[in-house]
Amino acid sequence: MKNKAIGVFDSGLGGLTAVKELIKCLPNENIVYFGDTGRVPYGTRSKETIIKYAAQDARFLLEHNVKMIIAACGTVSSVASNLGESLPVMFSGVLTPTAQACAQATKTGVVAVLGTSATINSHSYKNLINSINPDIKVFEQSCPLFVPLVENGFTDKDDIIVRSVVDRYVSQFKNSDVDTVILGCTHYPLLKAAIGEALGDKVRLIDSGKETALYTKKLLMEQNLLSHREEEGVREFYVSDTPHNFESIAGLFLGRDMKSKAVRIDIEKY
Amino acid sequence: MKNKAIGVFDSGLGGLTAVKELIKCLPNENIVYFGDTGRVPYGTRSKETIIKYAAQDARFLLEHNVKMIIAACGTVSSVASNLGESLPVMFSGVLTPTAQACAQATKTGVVAVLGTSATINSHSYKNLINSINPDIKVFEQSCPLFVPLVENGFTDKDDIIVRSVVDRYVSQFKNSDVDTVILGCTHYPLLKAAIGEALGDKVRLIDSGKETALYTKKLLMEQNLLSHREEEGVREFYVSDTPHNFESIAGLFLGRDMKSKAVRIDIEKY
Repeated sequence: MKNKAIGVFDSGLGGLTAVKELIKCLPNENIVYFGDTGRVPYGTRSKETIIKYAAQDARFLLEHNVKMIIAACGTVSSVASNLGESLPVMFSGVLTPTAQACAQATKTGVVAVLGTSATINSHSYKNLINSINPDIKVFEQSCPLFVPLVENGFTDKDDIIVRSVVDRYVSQFKNSDVDTVILGCTHYPLLKAAIGEALGDKVRLIDSGKETALYTKKLLMEQNLLSHREEEGVREFYVSDTPHNFESIAGLFLGRDMKSKAVRIDIEKY
Repeated sequence: MKNKAIGVFDSGLGGLTAVKELIKCLPNENIVYFGDTGRVPYGTRSKETIIKYAAQDARFLLEHNVKMIIAACGTVSSVASNLGESLPVMFSGVLTPTAQACAQATKTGVVAVLGTSATINSHSYKNLINSINPDIKVFEQSCPLFVPLVENGFTDKDDIIVRSVVDRYVSQFKNSDVDTVILGCTHYPLLKAAIGEALGDKVRLIDSGKETALYTKKLLMEQNLLSHREEEGVREFYVSDTPHNFESIAGLFLGRDMKSKAVRIDIEKY
């Protein structure tokens, strides 16, 4: 059981930012990643559709005999939060670890959440943060252009397009009481430099992928499920549309050279 | 047969700009529209996926007993151009009418095509224009941020976000020999003012939805298939994800108040 892989899925390739953090803190673990590139984006779809897609994604990973499933997707974590209840293995979304880190980090008690429309409309982060600490004031801002920006390579903080879009969404939080901002979508770490510059030094950014990786390590330790492997873990990548350009795009998200190829699967069968 | 509806489909709601033009030039025709909002966007997907989706969309419209099918989608028209061959009714994409109008309009013999990644990578417009007139020089520019801009309401030409994105894609054609530019995606007419301003007065914009509507009228006349109806036609709208906000979004695309509701269907069944 201990040497089974960790299963990670996302609506597309954004979840690879969480894989990057998992590799950092759990280098010996095998990872099976599924990116639903054939049906991306989830963030603008209905709740019903997102729940159906997430269940299929999890079923695919279960066939790979994983010891744990991570929904490395702010949208799924927010909208299909009950997914874990139907699974025979441990489950984590990005929501709980991120909300906990945010509630711990704030000094002013005023925070903001950036996310896709589906994530923000669900108020999932706000509700969870307030269940941890009802006194924290939570602002919410949907940023529907962030995912298209990242997926089309617009991440340079000095690019006027990047700067003007980031400013539009976050400038209201600059020079306010907000001292902690959640990057509530696994694409957003690629805009971290731009968001950081727009918000100024005093604001701390919480990266949902990073917090989820740390939480996963803690969970596997507690459950005595960490791998005994001494060599570096093997990572397998699956996608639901042509894996064209996967290496270069995955390199961008993972922040390292990718030798791995992705295999295409038909997610509608699951 | 004559009083049967015209079937129109698109990956999402962009095709409604073609419906708007159809209503203008064929006000007495019934129209059945299907927008694949559950699987939008097509423009970044693989050829194989786009062909499969387009065939399902056409089968859905055939069940509504239409006399003609229009793929009001630059991506489908470019990538699934053989779709018509398998259909028992007349078919038109946006490609042929738009390429013909462009080839007729240019005086300098230098034109440009704006489209999604899939449309531009297929070189479909370039090949078709050059099959009409091999002497026309065709520049091609993919504009992957245009659809997200439009779908998130960023269409105001004075908005710095709109202006900077439009400039990035089209400024190379300003003060060049290019005198005609194809808006090769049915979303793009909503950015017409911004694109027009970025290109200057001397450049003529060709709207694929408008050209397709005019071509449809000509085709139906030639085939003696125009409706005899004297009252205004009935328009039915179907979508594949929750029709939430359909009225307001459709109003934006159609440029008129929408009393119609959309009905959700399961496109995977077709």
